Amino acid sequence: MFSKCLENVRSKAPLVHCITNYVTVNDVANVILACGASPVMADDPCEAGDITAICDGLCVNIGTLNSMTIEAMRVACARAQALKHPMILDPVGAGASRLRTDTARKLLDDYDFTAVRGNMSEIKALASGSNDTRGVDCSGLDAVCKDNLDDAVGFVSGFAARENLTVAVTGAIDIVSDGRTSIAIYNGRPEMGRITGTGCQLSGMTTACVAADMISDAGSAGTVFAVAAAVSSMGVCGETAYANLKEGEGNATYRNRIIDAIYNLSGEELDGRCRYEIR
Amino acid sequence: MFSKCLENVRSKAPLVHCITNYVTVNDVANVILACGASPVMADDPCEAGDITAICDGLCVNIGTLNSMTIEAMRVACARAQALKHPMILDPVGAGASRLRTDTARKLLDDYDFTAVRGNMSEIKALASGSNDTRGVDCSGLDAVCKDNLDDAVGFVSGFAARENLTVAVTGAIDIVSDGRTSIAIYNGRPEMGRITGTGCQLSGMTTACVAADMISDAGSAGTVFAVAAAVSSMGVCGETAYANLKEGEGNATYRNRIIDAIYNLSGEELDGRCRYEIR
Amino acid sequence: MFSKCLENVRSKAPLVHCITNYVTVNDVANVILACGASPVMADDPCEAGDITAICDGLCVNIGTLNSMTIEAMRVACARAQALKHPMILDPVGAGASRLRTDTARKLLDDYDFTAVRGNMSEIKALASGSNDTRGVDCSGLDAVCKDNLDDAVGFVSGFAARENLTVAVTGAIDIVSDGRTSIAIYNGRPEMGRITGTGCQLSGMTTACVAADMISDAGSAGTVFAVAAAVSSMGVCGETAYANLKEGEGNATYRNRIIDAIYNLSGEELDGRCRYEIR
Repeated sequence: MFSKCLENVRSKAPLVHCITNYVTVNDVANVILACGASPVMADDPCEAGDITAICDGLCVNIGTLNSMTIEAMRVACARAQALKHPMILDPVGAGASRLRTDTARKLLDDYDFTAVRGNMSEIKALASGSNDTRGVDCSGLDAVCKDNLDDAVGFVSGFAARENLTVAVTGAIDIVSDGRTSIAIYNGRPEMGRITGTGCQLSGMTTACVAADMISDAGSAGTVFAVAAAVSSMGVCGETAYANLKEGEGNATYRNRIIDAIYNLSGEELDGRCRYEIR
Repeated sequence: MFSKCLENVRSKAPLVHCITNYVTVNDVANVILACGASPVMADDPCEAGDITAICDGLCVNIGTLNSMTIEAMRVACARAQALKHPMILDPVGAGASRLRTDTARKLLDDYDFTAVRGNMSEIKALASGSNDTRGVDCSGLDAVCKDNLDDAVGFVSGFAARENLTVAVTGAIDIVSDGRTSIAIYNGRPEMGRITGTGCQLSGMTTACVAADMISDAGSAGTVFAVAAAVSSMGVCGETAYANLKEGEGNATYRNRIIDAIYNLSGEELDGRCRYEIR
Repeated sequence: MFSKCLENVRSKAPLVHCITNYVTVNDVANVILACGASPVMADDPCEAGDITAICDGLCVNIGTLNSMTIEAMRVACARAQALKHPMILDPVGAGASRLRTDTARKLLDDYDFTAVRGNMSEIKALASGSNDTRGVDCSGLDAVCKDNLDDAVGFVSGFAARENLTVAVTGAIDIVSDGRTSIAIYNGRPEMGRITGTGCQLSGMTTACVAADMISDAGSAGTVFAVAAAVSSMGVCGETAYANLKEGEGNATYRNRIIDAIYNLSGEELDGRCRYEIR
C-alpha cells in the first residue's frame, strides 16, 4: 500500500509550493527532491498565488512566520482551495506563542486543509487553543507511548473528524487518522529529534505524497494512506540512516544520511520495513 | 585558459555580495568559500549599498524575492554600477510568476549587468517576457541537446548581443556566450538536478570568477571565459563528486561532495577535465 | 572546569531563542542540538517577546538584519532583560556597514548583554564606532598572534570592563575576558574560516553554555568560564573534525564533521584537549 504512494511521487513528480521557515528550508527542498518531487518556495503575497497555481500541492509551515509570510500563506491557501489542490499545514511551535497558535488556528478555520502534521503538543494547542508548548519540541507530558496509545488515537481521530481532515501526530509512535481510519506507525529513531527540521522535512514529503496520490494514474489510495506512507518512509529512513552511522558521526551526518536514504528508498523496501497497525 | 580564471579567484580572494534566496544561501556561501572567494549577504535596502561598496562583485538572485529584497537589489545594483563592479543576475523562476519575470526583466533594463545565468526556460522568459516556466526547473521542451544545439547557441548568442552582456544557460549542455564568442560545455551530471541550488551555487561562483578576472594582476581573460570557467568547474566537480558516491548515498551527500570537490579543484585538473568547444 | 560547563548543557537542555541570520541558521540550530540544548527561532516582533519568555537564553546575531528583525531583537532583549535571562550578541559584520555598526552599538547601549562574541575587527568596530571591516571576515591587520597577544588581551579586557560584560574575540588565538579574568585559548584550525558560519554556530553554543551555567544545579562556574568552555569546545571539535577529513573532502564535509564532533564531545575529552591560559 505504502509502496504505491511512494512510487506515485516518483512517477508523477509533483511540484510542491512550500511557504516554510528559513531554518530548515534547504533540507525541506532536498527531501522533496529526494522523494522524487520538485520544490518551489515563494513567500511574497504578490506571487504566492501565481506559484501555487502552477504547483500540484501546497505546504504551509509556520516556523519563522511574519506578517508578510502570513499574508502569503493566506493568498496561497485561497488559490490552492479554489484549484482543489491539496494543502498541508505544519503548525511549528503552535502553543509556544500567541501569534503561532492564533495563526495556525485561523488558517484551519478559514481554509479547507487536506492534512495537518505536527507533534502532539502542537496538535493539542490547535485543538484547545491553549498556549503552553515548550518551543518547537513536544512536551514530555504529551509523548505518545504504548500505555496511552488508545487515548492518543482517540484524541487524534476525534480532532481529525471535527476538522474534517487528515491529522498526523509524529513522535515515538506516530498516529495518522482521518477520523475513520487510524494508523499507528512504529518506525523511526529517537535520535531524529536531535536534528533540526525532521518534522518540517516530513511535512514537505507528505505534501508530495498527497499531491501525487491525487493525480495518480492508478487512482487515489486515499489521503490517510498517502500521509501514512510519508510518515513511515521518514521513519524507515531514520532507521536506515542510523544503522549506517559510523563512530564519531553525529547529528549533521545523520541529517544527510536520512535524506540520502529517502533518495534511495524503493517501494519494495518501504513495504518490507514499515511497521504499522490499523486501529 | 579556465585554470587561470580559477587561480585568479584563489589569489585575489574577491569579496562577493550576494542578495540571494534563503533556500540555498548557505550552500552559496560555502561554494564561494570553496572556490577561494569570500561571501557577504545583506538584503536590507539600508545597507545594501554600503555592503556592495566594500565588495568586488554583486550576485543578484531572485529566488524568494520580496518587496524589501527587490528594493535592496536595486540599491545594490545602482551602487555596483557606479563603482563599475561586475554584477551577475540569476533569474530563478523567471517565467513562473509575473513578479519574477517582471522583476528580472526590469533589473536587466535598468542596470548594466555583466552576466546572467539561468536555465533555458528562465532565459527564454527573460527574452520573451513570457510566463510559462514550470517552477524553478527547466521545462523538458527547452532542454538543450546535440540535435538542437545550433539553434540554442544562436538564441543565446543573439540574446547576449541584444542585452550586451554574457549569458550562461546551463543544463545537459551548457552554453556561454557574449554575442561574439560562444562556448558549449559538456561537463556535469544529470543527478545535479536532484540537489536544490546547484544553479544558485554556480551563480555565486560565477560572480567570484568574473570579479577575480577583472582585478587580476595578469590582466583579464575576458568575462565570457571567466563565466565559462565557473560553469565548467561546477560540471567537473559534479562529475568528481558523482564518481565518489558510495552505495546508499544520495542527493544530500552528493551536495556536500560537490562543494568539497570545488574546494579541492586545481587549475591543472580543471584544464585537464573540462570539455568544451568554441562555436 | 570546562567539562562542567558542557555537562550542564547536556543535563539542563536549555531552550535558546535565536534571532539570527538566514545564511547559517540551520547550522546554528544543529550545533545547539549537538551540544545538548534546544533551539527556537522567531524574528517577528509580534512573537519575539513570547518566545524569549519561554526560553532560557537569547542569542542575537545581526547578520542579514533588517528593519523587522531589528525591532524583534529589541523586543526580545527587553523581555530577556526583564526576566534576567542571559543575552549574547554576535555583531556579524559590525564595521562593514553603518547599519550594522550602529545597530550593534545601540543594542549594547540599550540592553544589558551578558556576553558579546565576534572577530577582532567586529569588536574593534563596536569599541570605536569605526566602520572599516572587510565584510564578515577579520581584517589581517586585526589578527591576534603571539606577538601582539598582550596588547590584544589588554584591549579585550578593557572593553569588557567598560561594557560590563564578557567578551569573546575569536580567531587564531581566542581571547575571553570579563575585565577581571582573561583567558587565551589556543584550540582550533585556520581551515574553520573556510566554512560559513562557524562564528554564528559558536555564538549559539555560547548562549547554551551561559544559559545552562546560570540554571545549573551545582551552582554557576561563572560566565567567563562558560563562554570559554564554548569557545574551547568549538576549537577542539574543529581539530577533531580536521583530523578526520579524508582525501578529497573539503569545507562542506568539514562543516558536518565539526557539528558531529560537538555531538560526541565528552566533558572528559574537552578537559583533556583544551589548551588555554589565564592571563
